[in-house]
Amino acid sequence: MSKGRFITVEGTEGVGKSTNMAYVKQWLERKGHEVIHTREPGGTPFAEEIRGLLLSKREERVNEQTELLLMFAARCQHVYNKIIPALDAGTWVLCDRFTDASYAYQGAGRNLGFDKLKQLEEWSLQGFKPDLTLMLDLPIEVGLERARQRGPADRFEEEEIDFFNKVREGYLNIAQAEPDRMKVINAEGSIEDVQQQIEQTLDLFYQQVVSA
Amino acid sequence: MSKGRFITVEGTEGVGKSTNMAYVKQWLERKGHEVIHTREPGGTPFAEEIRGLLLSKREERVNEQTELLLMFAARCQHVYNKIIPALDAGTWVLCDRFTDASYAYQGAGRNLGFDKLKQLEEWSLQGFKPDLTLMLDLPIEVGLERARQRGPADRFEEEEIDFFNKVREGYLNIAQAEPDRMKVINAEGSIEDVQQQIEQTLDLFYQQVVSA
Repeated sequence: MSKGRFITVEGTEGVGKSTNMAYVKQWLERKGHEVIHTREPGGTPFAEEIRGLLLSKREERVNEQTELLLMFAARCQHVYNKIIPALDAGTWVLCDRFTDASYAYQGAGRNLGFDKLKQLEEWSLQGFKPDLTLMLDLPIEVGLERARQRGPADRFEEEEIDFFNKVREGYLNIAQAEPDRMKVINAEGSIEDVQQQIEQTLDLFYQQVVSA
Repeated sequence: MSKGRFITVEGTEGVGKSTNMAYVKQWLERKGHEVIHTREPGGTPFAEEIRGLLLSKREERVNEQTELLLMFAARCQHVYNKIIPALDAGTWVLCDRFTDASYAYQGAGRNLGFDKLKQLEEWSLQGFKPDLTLMLDLPIEVGLERARQRGPADRFEEEEIDFFNKVREGYLNIAQAEPDRMKVINAEGSIEDVQQQIEQTLDLFYQQVVSA
């Protein structure tokens, strides 16, 4: 039995991650793979408890390093208790956000710097990375407007446009540094247009990586 | 105004940390210092929430790295939001457990290794350390018996004697490596005997460090 592959979907608020993840999942299942759909922060009961701490609002200011350590605490739990065992069992894992989101949100958005992130990533994951990352890209104003229509804002969604622009730039910098792994999908067009790009990307990944 | 000093009290279960911390606090207050008494994991409302996650029992196995990242998440929050601001304001800070406990419990007790701990300590605290650490030392069997008389066991207290012996050895190794900072107090005798050792240690610290 061959090992599963680990695919992540990234992007700022309102880029259409949920809709498009469902599309990716169907596409992979049509290829005959067993697929689990998970998310970060979270993905196991304990990691979801840590997610609860991260996303709830409070009076006390959360230190940037504290936030990052909690993110990676949830991530370790998710990777070692769920993702790696699934991949080893031949299951494909599709994840809504992963380490790239820490680089984009905390590293770029909160100015913690990529070096500081890299040390913590190495400490926590020892080189474990997605096989493929789809980065859904959209101008910030368009995405936030879509997100607002969905419901009340959480702590991240209240941040300023400026913050999200730095996050988006952070993602685009990673895509530039790792073009083989991270593929930028222009998410501004119609659903059909976006899904056509995703299908082409998955086709290519399949030819180059899976069938090779 | 001179800066406050940071004093920690360490030791395995049942060595008498609470009683002796109250003694240290009174001693320092008699010297005219303002003193706050705090504890780890915890010390701020958010860090106490993280403590709640760490100490509660659950079915899901907690990954060792997850546990350590949560510990340091709580520690960053505690250090940067409470301890350092207090020291800067001239207040002395007395803390029930600190980074040494991570070395002893996770590094030595759970075999994660001191190097792995050192990387995370450096990442999180950038060299911030206690000015003085009192390590209350007691044979494990004696301490556990005392702890059991106090009430129901939490997750740590259910661990095996073998684990606690490794923890104790971990503490003693740190004391050997950093004899100027960590002072071993033999906690097997009477309260009077223990407090006499503590008083001598504080006197010496005061002469060498504070009055110098």
